[in-house]
Amino acid sequence: MTIGFEVLARDGKARRGRLTTAHGEVDTPVFMPLATTGTVKAMTPEGVAATSARIVLGNTYHLMLRPGADRIYALGGLHRFMNWPYAILTDSGGFQVMSLAARRTITETGVTFRSHLDGSLYQLTPERSVEIQHQLGADVTMALDECTLYQSSREAVASSTELTMRWAERSRRAFVERAGHGVFGIVQGGVHPDLRLRATERLIDIGFDGYAVGGLAVGEGQATMFAVLDVTVPALPNDRPRYLMGVGKPADLVGAVLRGIDMFDCVLPTRSGRTAQAFTARGTVNLRNARHADDPAPLDPECRCPACTGYSRAYLHHLCRSGEILGSMLLTAHNLRYYADLMAAMRAAIEAGSLADFAAAFESSQ
Amino acid sequence: MTIGFEVLARDGKARRGRLTTAHGEVDTPVFMPLATTGTVKAMTPEGVAATSARIVLGNTYHLMLRPGADRIYALGGLHRFMNWPYAILTDSGGFQVMSLAARRTITETGVTFRSHLDGSLYQLTPERSVEIQHQLGADVTMALDECTLYQSSREAVASSTELTMRWAERSRRAFVERAGHGVFGIVQGGVHPDLRLRATERLIDIGFDGYAVGGLAVGEGQATMFAVLDVTVPALPNDRPRYLMGVGKPADLVGAVLRGIDMFDCVLPTRSGRTAQAFTARGTVNLRNARHADDPAPLDPECRCPACTGYSRAYLHHLCRSGEILGSMLLTAHNLRYYADLMAAMRAAIEAGSLADFAAAFESSQ
Repeated sequence: MTIGFEVLARDGKARRGRLTTAHGEVDTPVFMPLATTGTVKAMTPEGVAATSARIVLGNTYHLMLRPGADRIYALGGLHRFMNWPYAILTDSGGFQVMSLAARRTITETGVTFRSHLDGSLYQLTPERSVEIQHQLGADVTMALDECTLYQSSREAVASSTELTMRWAERSRRAFVERAGHGVFGIVQGGVHPDLRLRATERLIDIGFDGYAVGGLAVGEGQATMFAVLDVTVPALPNDRPRYLMGVGKPADLVGAVLRGIDMFDCVLPTRSGRTAQAFTARGTVNLRNARHADDPAPLDPECRCPACTGYSRAYLHHLCRSGEILGSMLLTAHNLRYYADLMAAMRAAIEAGSLADFAAAFESSQ
Repeated sequence: MTIGFEVLARDGKARRGRLTTAHGEVDTPVFMPLATTGTVKAMTPEGVAATSARIVLGNTYHLMLRPGADRIYALGGLHRFMNWPYAILTDSGGFQVMSLAARRTITETGVTFRSHLDGSLYQLTPERSVEIQHQLGADVTMALDECTLYQSSREAVASSTELTMRWAERSRRAFVERAGHGVFGIVQGGVHPDLRLRATERLIDIGFDGYAVGGLAVGEGQATMFAVLDVTVPALPNDRPRYLMGVGKPADLVGAVLRGIDMFDCVLPTRSGRTAQAFTARGTVNLRNARHADDPAPLDPECRCPACTGYSRAYLHHLCRSGEILGSMLLTAHNLRYYADLMAAMRAAIEAGSLADFAAAFESSQ
């Protein structure tokens, strides 16, 4: 029943674990590439799998609008639709709907919003969000939450977090248990330790298959984000996966793994791949920079990705300057490989009990 | 010495042959995908090779402007630059420069033009074009020609064709013979049989490793194009490859192979792949069309390409509607596979002596 999670090794607060889903096992800590509209942008599923990814994230908001959850269900679910045989986590749609600002209305029932594609009216309730994720066939379903703005008053955050907790309960109740599938609750509470702890306790009372920390990486800065994790993560159950939503830069991942986080997603590696930004063992590289024009060296000599094993920096520079799609394809493959390798290195360090050393070496390399 | 060409079988005027270059053998009749700026758009070289392509076309005009021929030479040549281990044919730059219209001046010496990228001034002479193609490392070099406009008067075509013949002689003289490398002359002459024949004789006098028919598929229509081939091709040497430049639609390829053409290039399969147009055994399909939205069937059940073996029409439709790069990637792979399979089917039909039957069946299928 539900999704399995096993902690195989510990190093301080960090855990090296394994998630077991209806679509295979996932080694944690793990970074999940974004497959927003049912495709990891500029990548084939085979290319994504070749980066060693075994779980991707689909966006309920985008998929419910186009092509529509009923349609994907009729076509056999999201896995078959996008030709991805491994695990899929879907978000609840809450985060994207909140960002519509003037185009949405929140009530106790749920959110009413207008599509950014054609202006047509939709309603997203906790029950409907979970139903859509069921139609998509998600291995991991996320409870609908209200993602509070970073700038909100404590009062507004408190009231929003209470709503999220009531929606969490409704989401949990709406979730249909199936083997290898699970539902995660989302801890909100802004930067307020007491609100975070209260939300955490409430979610544990409801009882989820995993717990996400939401509402971070929204402008509060790394130190504040880590402070929230220092308060929140120790209050989460030891035997369940912990997912930090929408994070982050490589240094954010290292710091969050040190603090006990198991799962991540972020637009950064894929979006950067389409804007000539590459992550390497020596920090980020802008391939549009003229200094690469004559450079026969690979982007990152330590990397085994197609971009680094087949091409020079000069060629990648040429592709980026020429606006060629192959530039986006190769740099996205590279960035996802970089993120996957970083997570694999952290898993090995946790097993070896050397994560603190790894983190120190990582910091000085950047 | 030079490039090898062997005719393995004949069927009427059609030939099934094999080109031997410094970068491998190429079975003919062959379609050459465009790698304009040093990349087949939206494809990895591995993906191009997987369509069974063993020769691609690089554009001298684009590459001389960006990243520059000296730079590619310093980086080890175009094959290494773009990570393509098979043969490359480069055009002379003439066709693109002509299309600059107001931005170029033609004299006996050559063409002076302004870059479409930054307005800087360049000169392209027959000698410089051949030198650039040598720097790029082309297996097949094309002589510089003036591609006459379809609307030109007979007098203008005659004078332009004479210039092309003088440039052909200079191009031939500038070409440095190396094993596995060759230079092709280009027959111009518009739609005028006598001018085409005169140009053909003159090129044969000069002596080339292969002969191209240029200045077609520029608005004259298929019947006129075929009429020009009916006059020109029989006058070309039997033991040398014949290349119809910039052609064409699938039906154009079938008709031209019937008339004795061995090599083709065209932007159609790659460009169409980026605009949701797919070539199939039953004609062209526009994947943006709403009738595909719920269709679980593959694009072309007879095709072995990644798009047809991994995905539904509904998914391809979704990618095209969403403007996703994967749509361009998959449809380009499909279209190149379709063109490659069409050429392979014609090679088999020539070997079997059944090309006329194949052509009749092809016509009724479209």
